[in-house]
Amino acid sequence: MARPTPLSGFPEWLPAGRTIEQHILDALRRTFELHGFAGIETRAVEPLDQLLRKGETSKEVYVLRRLQEEPAGAPDAAADAGAGASQLGLHFDLTVPFARYVLENAGHLAFPFKRYQIQKVWRGERPQDGRFREFVQADIDVVGAGELPYHYEVELPLVIAEALGSLAALGVPPVRILVNNRKVAEGFYRGLGLEDIDGVLRCIDKLDKIGADAVARVLVAETGASPEQAAACLELAAISGGDASVVDRVRVLAKREGIESELLETGLAELGALVTAAAERAPGVVVADLKIARGLDYYTGSVYETVLVGHEQLGSICSGGRYDTLATDGAHTYPGVGLSIGVSRLVSRLLAADLVRVSRTVPSAVVVAVTSEGSRSGSDRIAAALRARGIPVEVAPTAAKFGKQIKYADRRGVPFVWFPGSAAAVAEDGTPVAATADQVKDIRSGAQVEADAATWAPPAADLWPRVEPALG
Amino acid sequence: MARPTPLSGFPEWLPAGRTIEQHILDALRRTFELHGFAGIETRAVEPLDQLLRKGETSKEVYVLRRLQEEPAGAPDAAADAGAGASQLGLHFDLTVPFARYVLENAGHLAFPFKRYQIQKVWRGERPQDGRFREFVQADIDVVGAGELPYHYEVELPLVIAEALGSLAALGVPPVRILVNNRKVAEGFYRGLGLEDIDGVLRCIDKLDKIGADAVARVLVAETGASPEQAAACLELAAISGGDASVVDRVRVLAKREGIESELLETGLAELGALVTAAAERAPGVVVADLKIARGLDYYTGSVYETVLVGHEQLGSICSGGRYDTLATDGAHTYPGVGLSIGVSRLVSRLLAADLVRVSRTVPSAVVVAVTSEGSRSGSDRIAAALRARGIPVEVAPTAAKFGKQIKYADRRGVPFVWFPGSAAAVAEDGTPVAATADQVKDIRSGAQVEADAATWAPPAADLWPRVEPALG
Repeated sequence: MARPTPLSGFPEWLPAGRTIEQHILDALRRTFELHGFAGIETRAVEPLDQLLRKGETSKEVYVLRRLQEEPAGAPDAAADAGAGASQLGLHFDLTVPFARYVLENAGHLAFPFKRYQIQKVWRGERPQDGRFREFVQADIDVVGAGELPYHYEVELPLVIAEALGSLAALGVPPVRILVNNRKVAEGFYRGLGLEDIDGVLRCIDKLDKIGADAVARVLVAETGASPEQAAACLELAAISGGDASVVDRVRVLAKREGIESELLETGLAELGALVTAAAERAPGVVVADLKIARGLDYYTGSVYETVLVGHEQLGSICSGGRYDTLATDGAHTYPGVGLSIGVSRLVSRLLAADLVRVSRTVPSAVVVAVTSEGSRSGSDRIAAALRARGIPVEVAPTAAKFGKQIKYADRRGVPFVWFPGSAAAVAEDGTPVAATADQVKDIRSGAQVEADAATWAPPAADLWPRVEPALG
Repeated sequence: MARPTPLSGFPEWLPAGRTIEQHILDALRRTFELHGFAGIETRAVEPLDQLLRKGETSKEVYVLRRLQEEPAGAPDAAADAGAGASQLGLHFDLTVPFARYVLENAGHLAFPFKRYQIQKVWRGERPQDGRFREFVQADIDVVGAGELPYHYEVELPLVIAEALGSLAALGVPPVRILVNNRKVAEGFYRGLGLEDIDGVLRCIDKLDKIGADAVARVLVAETGASPEQAAACLELAAISGGDASVVDRVRVLAKREGIESELLETGLAELGALVTAAAERAPGVVVADLKIARGLDYYTGSVYETVLVGHEQLGSICSGGRYDTLATDGAHTYPGVGLSIGVSRLVSRLLAADLVRVSRTVPSAVVVAVTSEGSRSGSDRIAAALRARGIPVEVAPTAAKFGKQIKYADRRGVPFVWFPGSAAAVAEDGTPVAATADQVKDIRSGAQVEADAATWAPPAADLWPRVEPALG
């Protein structure tokens, strides 16, 4: 086989990159669990008809076929895949599978059900910077049975703020969470006399991409808005701010437009509560931004997007919102709210912009040298004694000259090399040779000291690989 | 949407099952990292021609197609997927992708390269007990550049023994690792005058399924063996044992058959060294078993299978071996040795046989009660104070009666409920009302005590969910 080349859109990291990603995933998981979210995983596949319920994403789905199977929807394929499912596709997010999991297992779950889920998802989109065909998402969601109190719409972005904030220690830039409320948008648009709410939202969603003038034109062309209505929509979208005064500014605008809407008032009360709570618990992180629309049409309340400060052009690294009717089997409905962190997008930027460094590329804190292949089992015993006390250790691959064994450690960034001592012996001429103690060398400083595998430990900062800000 | 039903072969766990799986994955990862294995992940897809290099597995591969793409191998699909790749399939193991990763990144890796990899894999096989279409594997491998010392064939099964042994605390039954060496088998068969080594191995591999008589028949029918040669092969396959005496028994048999083979001698020396080292470092766990063949034809030295003691009929839960030519680009070859744990198979058995129990289904050690929705922010502050000290906490979903809030905790197995105190106040009649302290209740014993969120902590055993033997 010739030397293989990467597949565009399917990122893979070298061990250093994976170490960074793993530290991020561990930190996210810890915050999620500290907040009581239970971890679950769902299968990678869903019946194609489920994946295509929202027409918008249909072009992104990867469809599966067993190699020996009759192509596309043969009877055997349907029977194989389970009742009613003609074809399987890879999931393109974790929200649709989670809604299905909730419906399928409702009888076994306790509601409100808080879960986190960290898995890969697949989208057949054309790859570009920060946009992949396979990528890792880390999601949190809460769903209720029949109802879900509003306060979860406040809680979830604050959990995300804490989770992403905990990554600062690793060198991740600060984030800004932009929030809006569908009820505000819908109440305002309807109050203006507009009917095609989804259409207006889709236009507003393009604001950052195509600019205000172009959005005004498509609003008129596609949603039947008058130029005045389009201008009012854009004026609403221009409002943003980190405290409850944004609510007053929306009210002033609505009054000027003669809008009276209960839905708008409900939405403004919710948005105000969110911004006020966030200003107390995560000051400066959460900002109301009335242009945030989110393309997916299942959101019904709060919507969220998140930018990495200084890397806004990367797009949102964490999005979500409140949804009321995504998970329903007709008889029961499970409203929810959730956010999804685009871990691969975040990691790819950290690596590309060299924002983060890792202290070594292997877990080992120590390489135990091997004096001769005949004494390898002695080196193995030293390693086992260190590991038994929680110290990551490997044994040198060959009994090469010590200089070469030190180089083995150095190439991997392993800070310590351990030299086994020798037992007491008798030389060929009969002279007794005293036993020598084990020694351990810090190969960064060159300092070498006697050491006992039953008691020695590296400094805490050297025990495991560190992930740190690159400029730290 | 109607209530969805499970897809056969695509297992999903409820939160309790996932907690068990996560504890197992965490324990495996810890052992792998203590031994210096670096974690990597590879993409889920490989070019189809790479996946089909070994003909045997072709029927298991899932092929991908973008929904909007021209079916099967259209020019655009090829251009999209990367140079030379006409179609993509889901990987069916982690060894083939790892070999590709090594070739692709050889210039950036330090050899010998030790990695672990924990990911899902997919095989379109007919599902049955312990055999899934989507499942999690946890692999360790070491590859060298050009050469790889034999001692890694001893080290890797011992790392696995330690990793699987560490699961005993969770309630996982002990394991037995069965080892053989391809050189022994090949040397013996060639010494007998047999030529179709792969054919003989495939027949011997069926011993447990179809029995010795049937294997003797297919050896004669399919590999051209005489009845006497078949009988000798079966006699070799019947040899097993936990110490180096197995080597002597093979030598006696070989001598009786008039076999003289350097390859056999090399294999016996290796197998003897493995069994001897294992008897010292993992007594009773590693057993030489000369019938272990492994179907895949890329193994060239040691081969391994692992059974769960008392659950042998489940099949191997961890298999692997030494391979010399899997990763080669013509100019360079990277020989390796590795083993793969079938995590889903293991977890499905633990759950089906009720071997393991989990102390609760959510991470939370504490539910902070909410006295009234107006005071929710006070409960949030208590929760934040506890979390800041590493205690997993959630806040009750509603300000229901305390009995209902206690039931909320109880349903999830959360051991503690925290009742916020009240600030000093003045009653309506002007009487001063003294402040009351926070209290925390152990809802298992009913014991309730005053507590301060800045100092209180649950017993260490209650801090996180425990996974334990069900009969413990």
